[in-house]
Amino acid sequence: MPNAKRPVLAVDVGGTNIRGARVAPDGRFLARHRVPNPVARGEEAILDALAGLCRTLAGRSSPAVVGVGIPGAVLPVRGVVASSPNVPCWHDTPIGPQLAARLGLRVVIDNDANLHALGEQWRGAGRGIPNLLLATLGTGIGGGIILDGRLWHGDGGRAGELGHTVVDPEGPPCNCGATGCVEAYASATGIVRAWRRRHGVRENRPRPGDRRVLRDTPATIAARARKGDPRALAVFAEAGRALGIAVATWLQILDVRTVIFGGGVSGALDLLEPLIRIELERRLWGLDASKIRLLRAELGDDAGILGAARLAQTVGDRR
Amino acid sequence: MPNAKRPVLAVDVGGTNIRGARVAPDGRFLARHRVPNPVARGEEAILDALAGLCRTLAGRSSPAVVGVGIPGAVLPVRGVVASSPNVPCWHDTPIGPQLAARLGLRVVIDNDANLHALGEQWRGAGRGIPNLLLATLGTGIGGGIILDGRLWHGDGGRAGELGHTVVDPEGPPCNCGATGCVEAYASATGIVRAWRRRHGVRENRPRPGDRRVLRDTPATIAARARKGDPRALAVFAEAGRALGIAVATWLQILDVRTVIFGGGVSGALDLLEPLIRIELERRLWGLDASKIRLLRAELGDDAGILGAARLAQTVGDRR
Repeated sequence: MPNAKRPVLAVDVGGTNIRGARVAPDGRFLARHRVPNPVARGEEAILDALAGLCRTLAGRSSPAVVGVGIPGAVLPVRGVVASSPNVPCWHDTPIGPQLAARLGLRVVIDNDANLHALGEQWRGAGRGIPNLLLATLGTGIGGGIILDGRLWHGDGGRAGELGHTVVDPEGPPCNCGATGCVEAYASATGIVRAWRRRHGVRENRPRPGDRRVLRDTPATIAARARKGDPRALAVFAEAGRALGIAVATWLQILDVRTVIFGGGVSGALDLLEPLIRIELERRLWGLDASKIRLLRAELGDDAGILGAARLAQTVGDRR
Repeated sequence: MPNAKRPVLAVDVGGTNIRGARVAPDGRFLARHRVPNPVARGEEAILDALAGLCRTLAGRSSPAVVGVGIPGAVLPVRGVVASSPNVPCWHDTPIGPQLAARLGLRVVIDNDANLHALGEQWRGAGRGIPNLLLATLGTGIGGGIILDGRLWHGDGGRAGELGHTVVDPEGPPCNCGATGCVEAYASATGIVRAWRRRHGVRENRPRPGDRRVLRDTPATIAARARKGDPRALAVFAEAGRALGIAVATWLQILDVRTVIFGGGVSGALDLLEPLIRIELERRLWGLDASKIRLLRAELGDDAGILGAARLAQTVGDRR
């Protein structure tokens, strides 16, 4: 860890804002800043914004490495963004080398869900746990895999797409175009859709009485479930069962005993966990379901920045 | 690799026989031998048989390390067999240390499916491929995972149970007690059961005309399928579809581009592969299905011994 003694810069690129921090070796934030992401103005403008943010964060200090989290498919070794749904102008774009050239600093990039996992493992719910999975239950379901304390990227940098674990091949349509992925059940999108289905709401032609249902979010549906609303309970039961099937598959493959849930829907882990555990009891073979830790992410929005900082600290350790 | 220059001993423990070889650094077999596994006579007798086999294999040479493949759940770091369906007297048994004490040699043990994977990666279909999955389609479906050229064991040494990837939670019963695992479709057991189901054979009370169907094996069913038998084709279509769903899930999680199929049913990979590829085309998201290599294992029965030899060679590299 060549940079363990010096602060690093850490950046989390979002579709709307770019957030960053100067982070001490122990994870303390020495400075924070954010700028809008000028997505509509194209590649050069985004690169200018990134470089400006980094210079502001560095101030008079002299960090050597910048870690950057990207919402999309990344080839970490080459510093290339293959594609990014939120930043469509990035397509096989060598952000790492480009930003490094502007700043005269070493730049390492990775997928944002991977860096969430790394952040939680460094300073959050996964502290001291060398092997873990993190699943972010947001609009979709993303994920990151930590094995022996390090991110697993796979052959093409796309490992950890936990949302597309098949739960039921005849299940509901998923954002990926296939059917029955766990994302179709347990993402915010999946939960809201199931809620509307259970009320007979036609999303294309809603009736006046549907308005309340259409305003509901995973958080409000969860609140209704906690008050005993049977349809809300059923929605989370279905999502929890699907998650349990997916988690069982992940654990049979990797024999990792810790799964951390982040993203908005993880606020309903109290409703989901009993159903997840029923499936683990049924389905884990040769593994003791009672030893599996299901944890809520602790770092919230800072997980990505802390993961980027950790990545920058340990740069060079592994592709 | 401290032992790369010297031959090692490699042993593959089966429920009926124990097979072994003295293996040169380049994988050549310098001696081979097999003895019956005296399972019924208990722990001491098995240990005697193992030690005798090793002494025979060593002859006048002086190997330093023995690698042993075990059919069951293994804790490789401690050399302990947690449990073994084929050798029921082994239950939390420290075979590694016990055999080491008898022989005065270093002994390393691992699960046999893991060693199949390692053998194929060293000398078989996976040569030169750092990241791969091996699925053995036998009575059940086992597996091994190679990441960065090394076996991945997981927290408890049970990683790679690829057979219990859920394909359809409402699917047929699996040997593990749950339902709809890929093993219930694409193992020899699953294929034979599906074949009998399609003929309306009641396994408990077969009618006289059911005899031929009851004699069929995956190989004879595959032969019928290749001649155009519609029921046989349907059985392999169902198995291939289930495998395709499972493979898609594995690849989305790990982004590994190579899957090797071993075990008896892999002889029908010609029938299975088109169906596997249909599911990969449908289900892989962000991955290019045409770049996925689906390979048949090349080493047959020697995969386990070669994997044990490779394990012995690289001992100490990783838990």
